[in-house]
Amino acid sequence: MILCAATMVTGDGSTVLHNAALRVEGTRITEVGSAEKLRQAYPADEVIDYGEATILPGLMDMHVHFGYYYSQPDIYEYNDFMIAYYAQEQAKKALELGITTVRDVSSPSGLLQNMRKAAQKGYIEAPRIIHTDTGICMTGGHGHDDGIVEADGEWEIRKEIRKQLRDGADWVKILTSNRESMPEYTQEELNAAVDESHRRHAKVAVHAGLQPAIQMCIDAGFDTIEHGTFLTEDQVKQMAANGQAWVPTITAYTVLYEYCKEQVEKGVDKTNRIAAKAMRDIAFFEPAYWAYRNNFKKFYDTGVTVLAGTDMVLYGAPVLPLARELSLMVEYGITPVQAIATATGNPARVLDLEDTVGTLKAGLEADLMIVQGNAAEDIGALNHIADVYQAGKRVVRRDEA
Amino acid sequence: MILCAATMVTGDGSTVLHNAALRVEGTRITEVGSAEKLRQAYPADEVIDYGEATILPGLMDMHVHFGYYYSQPDIYEYNDFMIAYYAQEQAKKALELGITTVRDVSSPSGLLQNMRKAAQKGYIEAPRIIHTDTGICMTGGHGHDDGIVEADGEWEIRKEIRKQLRDGADWVKILTSNRESMPEYTQEELNAAVDESHRRHAKVAVHAGLQPAIQMCIDAGFDTIEHGTFLTEDQVKQMAANGQAWVPTITAYTVLYEYCKEQVEKGVDKTNRIAAKAMRDIAFFEPAYWAYRNNFKKFYDTGVTVLAGTDMVLYGAPVLPLARELSLMVEYGITPVQAIATATGNPARVLDLEDTVGTLKAGLEADLMIVQGNAAEDIGALNHIADVYQAGKRVVRRDEA
Amino acid sequence: MILCAATMVTGDGSTVLHNAALRVEGTRITEVGSAEKLRQAYPADEVIDYGEATILPGLMDMHVHFGYYYSQPDIYEYNDFMIAYYAQEQAKKALELGITTVRDVSSPSGLLQNMRKAAQKGYIEAPRIIHTDTGICMTGGHGHDDGIVEADGEWEIRKEIRKQLRDGADWVKILTSNRESMPEYTQEELNAAVDESHRRHAKVAVHAGLQPAIQMCIDAGFDTIEHGTFLTEDQVKQMAANGQAWVPTITAYTVLYEYCKEQVEKGVDKTNRIAAKAMRDIAFFEPAYWAYRNNFKKFYDTGVTVLAGTDMVLYGAPVLPLARELSLMVEYGITPVQAIATATGNPARVLDLEDTVGTLKAGLEADLMIVQGNAAEDIGALNHIADVYQAGKRVVRRDEA
Amino acid sequence: MILCAATMVTGDGSTVLHNAALRVEGTRITEVGSAEKLRQAYPADEVIDYGEATILPGLMDMHVHFGYYYSQPDIYEYNDFMIAYYAQEQAKKALELGITTVRDVSSPSGLLQNMRKAAQKGYIEAPRIIHTDTGICMTGGHGHDDGIVEADGEWEIRKEIRKQLRDGADWVKILTSNRESMPEYTQEELNAAVDESHRRHAKVAVHAGLQPAIQMCIDAGFDTIEHGTFLTEDQVKQMAANGQAWVPTITAYTVLYEYCKEQVEKGVDKTNRIAAKAMRDIAFFEPAYWAYRNNFKKFYDTGVTVLAGTDMVLYGAPVLPLARELSLMVEYGITPVQAIATATGNPARVLDLEDTVGTLKAGLEADLMIVQGNAAEDIGALNHIADVYQAGKRVVRRDEA
Repeated sequence: MILCAATMVTGDGSTVLHNAALRVEGTRITEVGSAEKLRQAYPADEVIDYGEATILPGLMDMHVHFGYYYSQPDIYEYNDFMIAYYAQEQAKKALELGITTVRDVSSPSGLLQNMRKAAQKGYIEAPRIIHTDTGICMTGGHGHDDGIVEADGEWEIRKEIRKQLRDGADWVKILTSNRESMPEYTQEELNAAVDESHRRHAKVAVHAGLQPAIQMCIDAGFDTIEHGTFLTEDQVKQMAANGQAWVPTITAYTVLYEYCKEQVEKGVDKTNRIAAKAMRDIAFFEPAYWAYRNNFKKFYDTGVTVLAGTDMVLYGAPVLPLARELSLMVEYGITPVQAIATATGNPARVLDLEDTVGTLKAGLEADLMIVQGNAAEDIGALNHIADVYQAGKRVVRRDEA
Repeated sequence: MILCAATMVTGDGSTVLHNAALRVEGTRITEVGSAEKLRQAYPADEVIDYGEATILPGLMDMHVHFGYYYSQPDIYEYNDFMIAYYAQEQAKKALELGITTVRDVSSPSGLLQNMRKAAQKGYIEAPRIIHTDTGICMTGGHGHDDGIVEADGEWEIRKEIRKQLRDGADWVKILTSNRESMPEYTQEELNAAVDESHRRHAKVAVHAGLQPAIQMCIDAGFDTIEHGTFLTEDQVKQMAANGQAWVPTITAYTVLYEYCKEQVEKGVDKTNRIAAKAMRDIAFFEPAYWAYRNNFKKFYDTGVTVLAGTDMVLYGAPVLPLARELSLMVEYGITPVQAIATATGNPARVLDLEDTVGTLKAGLEADLMIVQGNAAEDIGALNHIADVYQAGKRVVRRDEA
Repeated sequence: MILCAATMVTGDGSTVLHNAALRVEGTRITEVGSAEKLRQAYPADEVIDYGEATILPGLMDMHVHFGYYYSQPDIYEYNDFMIAYYAQEQAKKALELGITTVRDVSSPSGLLQNMRKAAQKGYIEAPRIIHTDTGICMTGGHGHDDGIVEADGEWEIRKEIRKQLRDGADWVKILTSNRESMPEYTQEELNAAVDESHRRHAKVAVHAGLQPAIQMCIDAGFDTIEHGTFLTEDQVKQMAANGQAWVPTITAYTVLYEYCKEQVEKGVDKTNRIAAKAMRDIAFFEPAYWAYRNNFKKFYDTGVTVLAGTDMVLYGAPVLPLARELSLMVEYGITPVQAIATATGNPARVLDLEDTVGTLKAGLEADLMIVQGNAAEDIGALNHIADVYQAGKRVVRRDEA
Repeated sequence: MILCAATMVTGDGSTVLHNAALRVEGTRITEVGSAEKLRQAYPADEVIDYGEATILPGLMDMHVHFGYYYSQPDIYEYNDFMIAYYAQEQAKKALELGITTVRDVSSPSGLLQNMRKAAQKGYIEAPRIIHTDTGICMTGGHGHDDGIVEADGEWEIRKEIRKQLRDGADWVKILTSNRESMPEYTQEELNAAVDESHRRHAKVAVHAGLQPAIQMCIDAGFDTIEHGTFLTEDQVKQMAANGQAWVPTITAYTVLYEYCKEQVEKGVDKTNRIAAKAMRDIAFFEPAYWAYRNNFKKFYDTGVTVLAGTDMVLYGAPVLPLARELSLMVEYGITPVQAIATATGNPARVLDLEDTVGTLKAGLEADLMIVQGNAAEDIGALNHIADVYQAGKRVVRRDEA
């Protein structure tokens, strides 16, 4: 099968091919090249010509919480059956949005393993899943009231990590600062978390948004810094030098800021626990919003690896707004092709999947997204999805997406 | 929207319309009549002309177990997450087979309530669900090793029924005979089960296949007799007189008989617990097979209400073989139109849903199945599904089914 | 100490004294008579002259739930500490409203025993407490989701009653009909509940509002019928003949009806679980409201013993609106003096406390309420409380009430 | 009683006596010497002349798991009763194979204590038992899914060891590497395990097969290294210098390798969980097999103490194949007499039982095995057992073995 389109963005952050095509055999891309040459070389192949569209690698969302039912108003009625169905809808939506790989960085324990297994059995459709187990915070730390496991001291943390890896987690997730200027974990605990993960050959992500937590996490050697809301330029340079990646999740903070502003303006419904919770934090969200807006381009230019992640769990908000995340990056100063790499080639490298997915080249799995228009010039094209392929199989069609 | 086709089987057990059409507005059928007249009356309506196909009511499977994971070889790895996903695939398959309503007569407690809720929330797609909670048997009775709840004596049974109705069950399911000639429950216990259900305005189904259990269940007043494998003609007449319906589940016993025969011929794999279990019961399945084959037509002619149910839970067997159930009925002597009523108009009456679904008439929900060919003459047409509609929404399309 | 006022309503349902006084020594009333004579007889006594006020016995609320925290929006944060504090505020409010005795007819197990003990120790202030343990319903019956214990069958019910009496309950409370036409308990179970209570010399109250449950409860011989919303005149006559008392709790149904109507008019907040729950039942509350309004006077005139009880547990509603209950009775046709007896002399008799409290006569405990104005003519006077005495001790003063 | 045979292998690794005899009084060997002289000295003694047979010390299997029921296909039906019976059959088999002493290095907690006690009470027959409690691994470490206890950090490990010693364990067993190149426990944890055991005067065995775990274990000072599959010659020299013994368990790895090869060739039965599990690890078993074959003689020659252990727990495989273990040692280069010492004199020394069993000399317990043929020249003779004595009592006879 040969797929061709006017534009192809390969996902490496710079390459744009015109009038190119790729050939898919079974689950894999076997050739990428000139559309004309490929058609001539394989005259018997089925050809799908997407015309003025753009072919891109399937997107990778590096910060999702498929099982985050905590924001639902009827949370107390969720048992494991309902959590399973909730998460499955998130997975289905992901594919419809062209997201063929996700890194889930904290959901109820055991959920993601079973989603992956259920997808293998054919019970459900889901993106490729890389996942941590439940996140780990200090007692009373960020997220402890939303399903995050509390562990304190080097050995409790090491034990929890061992348990999670035993139970099938791919990555480890630590949380160590909330919305107040307090570091939560000590340096010693952060170091232990990284050491235990790395000696087990697992990578480790950390939720850190404020000082001094951010610096402590850089020093500890985390593989990805999630949010990093109030990073300084000097710290981003350290991350670039250390090979630590940044997952800014700009959209989440932007949407929460907008939501809080709206609540303030129209008056908060105090019986609504979700609204009440968000409002506690408006003093945080406003400067957060401006930090991203003012610093993103400058930080990007340090050469740090930037990864797109949505982290969107607000009740009623759009699910997995990855296209918006890339749009905001473009709005804040980088090119669409650079932005696309944050959701394709970059995450593939960080996930050690660069030989499997993330770019368009021979030998990789055919996880693909086709969008109408020229995504290399207009990032808004990502909102106009035509087809989505997962390992060579069309999982979303134009009229469903 | 107007749907028309060469043949329409309305589901009442006798009516076949030619060149007819039905009009759907929103979720409901608003008119049924001549295709020509309807087109003229509503010239602005979208028309879907299915040509030589047959339009029928969505099918109703009166005996399913969506959560029956007990037959899976890796049963010990199923937790609630995985059970949720397993069941959801059953639900998806049901729709693909044109089954728009099911009565689930025992699954893990709480599963079906959550499936229904998850479908309402839009997390999953599922047929209309009427369900019991977990079935109830005596201690050691049929199914006690497959998730059936054990309750003994009048008051334990009444309490369990109260608990199940409290927790949202629509029907009650009792089991009272296995594959040996032993009645399991006493008459007193069966009477209590029926009394407690009926005083709570709930109907109650009973698994009964052998004597004297069948007679005891008829006397107790159960609403539906499941299987009734070794019913006598006299007993069927009693059921007809009492308004008790029969759910023969012919296919289940036929497939199990064929499976056992095959196992005997090729040698049983003793390390396979599913095979081993089935083999224990071959002495039962052979006469069971012949009982259905020899008696079905004679029993049908008594006027008893017959209901189609599949009850298929054998590992590796086809899921929800409702079309085969109807084919076997036709093979054993009734007409295709009569057979279709056992899966449409009849179940709707027994479920007290006759004003909601089950036949094609104005005012009912537009749960529809369109099959290629003339199903009024050839029951095999049910295997060639075109589209399926649930409450006026097309949920399966020709190229997916 | 001599207390005098222009009006004295003794609580027997008919007697009104003018310019009368009562003498209190220690905890007891030692004399009731002409103010003038008493002052002369005991010139050394302190005299409190309430002028144009009315002296009444302290009120008795026969249907309270001090521990009913289930209506609170933050219910999930209540542990036993918090429940204790919640209940204590109810108790304090009771005294402020002139309620010096309550019958609590279901709260978390052990709460009322400890309130009584804490009051004896002087830790808290509380009215005189007569109480059941947790109410008892069938599995899935009324209240099962609000802390009511589920028990089924004669022997489970008898055992639960034995346990509750062992643990210190004064009365027993059964619940047997909700807001649908279904009897819940069987006759056999109700009979057992009454028999077990009576043979243990405990009285037994029953929540019953609908047919056929009401008749079953009259037949079983319950001492008080709570609510009896859809009682018939014939049934009330049976109750009168049997010496069974009626606790209509008119206010509760009236407030719920008004609340539901308001919700319908202004649009229901679906994220508010309390509102959502109430709305399920509007079809019940509207006819309930009219049943009380239309039948109260007719029923009262049969001679049945009527008892005032508030049963007010709606979030945000006024606490223990006993004055409103009496006002509604007057509005529906009886005299203020008769109404006052339903909250004084009548309950004292039913609680077997007629030699302790409930009327103003020598020898009884000095539980007293003084209100401004003439309560014998204007029941609204009960809303203008001056002082409240409990066993001769002033527990509420004019400027607090 | 005098026992004589053409050959006697005393178990010290070098001595072979011809035409020798030993005298047994009660439970003990009282003299070893020339058959002729002994007969003359004790003319009244019963003489058992085994002719061309060989007399050896009863064998000692240093690595068994009597309670390892985890490999059984019906594992989920094992309760403590069944585990007891399972283990008892292992014990009986041991005696039939001439194994009169075992070191059990992890079984369900409490099992071995009770076997020993039951043998003392005469309820069962069992070899002399030296045992650890359940093995200890880090969370998720080797064996955690087969009954091994998880403990992490110095203090959890010390506490677990203290508990096990309190409950009667003779040795301690640690596990710290699986079949992937990952050390599991940190050095700090391993050091703590050894320290805690030694200060309590208990010896401690460690499962370690790969680098860097092996080196970490040598450094920590474990008494016996179990498996040591990928030991280097340098490391074996360190062990020899430190007095650390090696329990290679060659047979286990050989059988697993053969089994996996066979499964690959004939196709794996995916419904067989045992097969499925083994297959995951074929990439490990093949080089393991070659490591033993290539290195055994070289390592033996360093002078390290080698101990025979079977560790055979594969479903369907021969139980306690100690004779095969010795045969493989001979096949890989050492003499039969040296091989026999690895299952007699050597383990006795390591178990601190050299004054009790393990060699044939006056004063020791009369634990004996008689085999047909000359075991000093043909190790295969161990497969032809005549009689077995335990503490002077014949527990297996020619016609049973």
